[in-house]
Amino acid sequence: MKLMYLNSVWVVLAAAMVLFMEGGFSLLEAGFVRTKNAVNVTMKIFVDLTVGALAFWLIGFGIMFGKDAFGIIGTTLFGSPEKIALSIDLPSAAFVLFQMGFAVACISIVSGAVAERMNFKAYVLTAALICIIIYPLSGHWIWNSNGWLAKLGMKDFAGSAAIHALGGFAAFAMAKLLGPRKGRFNSDGSANVFAPSNIPLASSGAFILWFGWFAFNAGSTLDASNTALSSIAINTMLAGAAGGTVALFLTMKKFGKADPSMTINGVLSGLVAITAGCAFVSQWSAIIIGAISGLIVIYATLFVDYLKVDDPVGAVAVHGFNGVFGTIAVGLFDKSQGLLTTGDFYLFKIQVLGAVIVVIWGLIGGAFMAKVCEMTVGLRASEREEEEGLDMSYHGIPAYNELERFTDIPTSLYDFEGTTGITVAPVNSKEIPR
Amino acid sequence: MKLMYLNSVWVVLAAAMVLFMEGGFSLLEAGFVRTKNAVNVTMKIFVDLTVGALAFWLIGFGIMFGKDAFGIIGTTLFGSPEKIALSIDLPSAAFVLFQMGFAVACISIVSGAVAERMNFKAYVLTAALICIIIYPLSGHWIWNSNGWLAKLGMKDFAGSAAIHALGGFAAFAMAKLLGPRKGRFNSDGSANVFAPSNIPLASSGAFILWFGWFAFNAGSTLDASNTALSSIAINTMLAGAAGGTVALFLTMKKFGKADPSMTINGVLSGLVAITAGCAFVSQWSAIIIGAISGLIVIYATLFVDYLKVDDPVGAVAVHGFNGVFGTIAVGLFDKSQGLLTTGDFYLFKIQVLGAVIVVIWGLIGGAFMAKVCEMTVGLRASEREEEEGLDMSYHGIPAYNELERFTDIPTSLYDFEGTTGITVAPVNSKEIPR
Amino acid sequence: MKLMYLNSVWVVLAAAMVLFMEGGFSLLEAGFVRTKNAVNVTMKIFVDLTVGALAFWLIGFGIMFGKDAFGIIGTTLFGSPEKIALSIDLPSAAFVLFQMGFAVACISIVSGAVAERMNFKAYVLTAALICIIIYPLSGHWIWNSNGWLAKLGMKDFAGSAAIHALGGFAAFAMAKLLGPRKGRFNSDGSANVFAPSNIPLASSGAFILWFGWFAFNAGSTLDASNTALSSIAINTMLAGAAGGTVALFLTMKKFGKADPSMTINGVLSGLVAITAGCAFVSQWSAIIIGAISGLIVIYATLFVDYLKVDDPVGAVAVHGFNGVFGTIAVGLFDKSQGLLTTGDFYLFKIQVLGAVIVVIWGLIGGAFMAKVCEMTVGLRASEREEEEGLDMSYHGIPAYNELERFTDIPTSLYDFEGTTGITVAPVNSKEIPR
Repeated sequence: MKLMYLNSVWVVLAAAMVLFMEGGFSLLEAGFVRTKNAVNVTMKIFVDLTVGALAFWLIGFGIMFGKDAFGIIGTTLFGSPEKIALSIDLPSAAFVLFQMGFAVACISIVSGAVAERMNFKAYVLTAALICIIIYPLSGHWIWNSNGWLAKLGMKDFAGSAAIHALGGFAAFAMAKLLGPRKGRFNSDGSANVFAPSNIPLASSGAFILWFGWFAFNAGSTLDASNTALSSIAINTMLAGAAGGTVALFLTMKKFGKADPSMTINGVLSGLVAITAGCAFVSQWSAIIIGAISGLIVIYATLFVDYLKVDDPVGAVAVHGFNGVFGTIAVGLFDKSQGLLTTGDFYLFKIQVLGAVIVVIWGLIGGAFMAKVCEMTVGLRASEREEEEGLDMSYHGIPAYNELERFTDIPTSLYDFEGTTGITVAPVNSKEIPR
Repeated sequence: MKLMYLNSVWVVLAAAMVLFMEGGFSLLEAGFVRTKNAVNVTMKIFVDLTVGALAFWLIGFGIMFGKDAFGIIGTTLFGSPEKIALSIDLPSAAFVLFQMGFAVACISIVSGAVAERMNFKAYVLTAALICIIIYPLSGHWIWNSNGWLAKLGMKDFAGSAAIHALGGFAAFAMAKLLGPRKGRFNSDGSANVFAPSNIPLASSGAFILWFGWFAFNAGSTLDASNTALSSIAINTMLAGAAGGTVALFLTMKKFGKADPSMTINGVLSGLVAITAGCAFVSQWSAIIIGAISGLIVIYATLFVDYLKVDDPVGAVAVHGFNGVFGTIAVGLFDKSQGLLTTGDFYLFKIQVLGAVIVVIWGLIGGAFMAKVCEMTVGLRASEREEEEGLDMSYHGIPAYNELERFTDIPTSLYDFEGTTGITVAPVNSKEIPR
Repeated sequence: MKLMYLNSVWVVLAAAMVLFMEGGFSLLEAGFVRTKNAVNVTMKIFVDLTVGALAFWLIGFGIMFGKDAFGIIGTTLFGSPEKIALSIDLPSAAFVLFQMGFAVACISIVSGAVAERMNFKAYVLTAALICIIIYPLSGHWIWNSNGWLAKLGMKDFAGSAAIHALGGFAAFAMAKLLGPRKGRFNSDGSANVFAPSNIPLASSGAFILWFGWFAFNAGSTLDASNTALSSIAINTMLAGAAGGTVALFLTMKKFGKADPSMTINGVLSGLVAITAGCAFVSQWSAIIIGAISGLIVIYATLFVDYLKVDDPVGAVAVHGFNGVFGTIAVGLFDKSQGLLTTGDFYLFKIQVLGAVIVVIWGLIGGAFMAKVCEMTVGLRASEREEEEGLDMSYHGIPAYNELERFTDIPTSLYDFEGTTGITVAPVNSKEIPR
């Protein structure tokens, strides 16, 4: 039996699980934002999976994995990613599919931070731009075997830097340029926080993300004969558990309440932080990395608030700060090259360099996309759209439509004239196209 | 190492994912229908997975895969599907389980179209009938190696015809005979559309369906040594993404709003349409097929309305029309036999023939089941049951029970006397059976 | 190609699916309890996956799989579970991860039965204790090759006894000592049942659990070359379907309504009951075992009520009673040693013995944990906390926060002063730590 048969099965299943994480992002964000914007964040995830995925397949993949020019950019495979020649025993289609899952995840990180006030068309444009150039370019540096950071020896197994730190800091720049939601910060410098609208929904999202993360990290082997595969999986579990434990206990101690959002974000932080090093560190190191990430997420959340940047779901703290930490943690805990484990300084320096580069590129990329949106379709929703809620403004339908239980209308026949014309508006049969 | 070991793992995991799609159907439909019928659609999915699955195991499997008689019907394996002799290197139990997932999916397509007004007992009967005879019979024609359509060379890799078109047109016939929900059509010929009750729920359903679809299509290889496995998976992704993209942009352009239901149904249409051809077409063809399906679903939805058939979730447009399109698309885009790709007309004719046959059989089957229900348990819910909502009428409990938040009753102690006696009614300890 | 490569993939994926079942438990319980306690049950599941998982990794694993002393307890591997030497061709990390999934599932069974009135800190302590000693000790007896029940020949393939009966009866003891929720039983001996708050949510949970159960049972092979793998998977499906069918029809017949909670619990009961025997019985036996479990769950639910023990989600009936039944059913239906299939009495006696031992140990363990909690952090929530709901009391946030739809506050800016300080309270930027 050929190894390629097993690898196909492994990578296709892993890709399906990574793509399923989009459902996790959608539920997490829909639960964290206010009800009036829950449809909108969900629709943005659909944009990621449709427009974003196609944009990456068509162009981004070539930028990232095409024939290298100067260690900077790929120059081939546009519109034909399946022509890539892999050194591992894997059909190219499986590889491309898995990479599409990664690109889509990177956009979805951004979607949370810009929630509740971004123009929908601007988001569509942003999703395309991230997948076409922002993510693939730095991805090329780190993951193309001829990329300049790869050649320096940077280690980022499943993307703490390439995906999470990049997405997190692009999100930071966009959130900064978008400005905060109305009412988020007071004139005296203090911040208000809007209550999450649906905790069970957000939790479901977190469970799906955790499930998919096993595939995100272990699937990055791309090869079932990689003997680290099982260690990667258990490291992923242990770091997530440690991140959640620390965040849970810290909120209990600090605020007297076991805070759901922070516990969820603590788990996700552990998962983000272990993503770079999952294949390189011991189980105890994974626990330590996860535990530290649980601390980081709480203080990073407060720090982002302090900077007056409005991130409705904590994406910058979870993915940005812990992506950076996870990248650097490889330099500390790597079994064969880590500073703390071997005393060797080289890898540590490279990891810090890589993290700094990715943060800078993320900030530039985010600012670039915001400017492009501003100059074309408009970056921010109008004040009226924001107040009404993006669900009605852009999608013509509220997230939850249970009025029939609270009114005495016997059969609930809604007539939202002037909206989509399909889902909720009366359809006049005479307009049927022939 | 034996290939059979890998095949067992592959097909068992794929079957689990296909069966998990039932959760997707349940959430999708519960989110699309009105709140007062959300429990009922969920319970129908449980009927599919319990009564339907057992009925198929007991009888349907034999009709479909038993020893062929006249190319029409199977005649063995009743009550003992595990005795099937497979030509592939796979334990029969894995094959049977995977096929159970397919049969159950076929019923679930119907469940959406008849939502909100069907007698629950009639649905139980329908689920059994589909799994016993309607689905297995045409399934035999297409997928039993001795079936008459199979012998003509019809290609339906994972069931655009055998499952989706069949389910979609059986649904159409039943929805037609059931009649529309109260208030759905006006006397002047115009249509009203009821607003979906819970968009985040419906979206979760769509994400689960998309996840499962990778297994639905790629799992249909039933054999990990099939080198098309990875291509199938990426074609599935690309078609779904293209279908969603087209539906999204079209609703934005046509109605000024990015419509959630249509975008979801666009994605599902792409997935349905690629199901027949996923193993036979190129990645570019998959994108084209998906994109066309995104157009079809919008106009087919309007067309079904025009015919005054009430399909609350769009199942006929998604599964019926795009199942037919996907079947025919194989005849156009097949790499070795397609009309557009090779100029060869033969396969195209066979695919059209197969699609027509399946549509006719679906309509007959749907009408037959409706008649059987009408003559036995009654097809339609009473007017009072429909108005009250099927949740309270048939299940004695509302979907969402959050009254304590909206009333001033401090501890919410519900007493629905006369209902189930278990979940919500007081239980008198003296009635305990001994 | 080495078998180990396939086994790694198989067990890692199975472990991910088993851990995903936690999402299922969370949604199921959040849907079954009252709205005011939905966040709390969700947070308890996060405690299971974080604190519980780490406690098991650190200590419990050694108790369960460490070097045996007297057939009673393991004495090595504390803090280093990866050092275990396995007789199967599987990396230890994959084995440890899979076992973590099992330990976490065992706690989650308890979480449902103690819902809506337990002190949150007491739950954290309980989760740790179960994973450190209660579950691993009896697990050692049954699953360590030198355990005393294992040596007698007890058969418990995937844990009807080791996980479900143990968890179910520990839950029973804790629920008994906790006392019922306020208003649950009347002074005349009759019982009131609180309506589940969210049926679609509970259903999603059931679908996730069913999906994960394929991995729970078939993954317990730990070895893809085990030829029973596929049979296990189909037996799992058939028993769940049969359990659900019987519960569905029985509630329709007995109460005139198809009861959602009972149907869901019927499915879960079938899954629990087949867990011990899935690898040892025929497909017809699986159907019979499942069908009987669907009867048992209904009468066991009434019986627990009759004993005035308050189990909000039916965990004792589902996991406790059907765990016992499933364990004994192996003694009846085992293909090579069953009483009904071969007339041999030996296995039957051992299975009854094993079940009795596990029930006793579960009751002792549950009572022990309740006492420890009582003597330390306090077992039960205060009357005020219970009345207010555990969500606000312990977590400072309600499950669903949709007030902006029902009030005329244009932008909903919540200010829950005195709560977590992060999620929902104003953050004063001057308090930022440096």
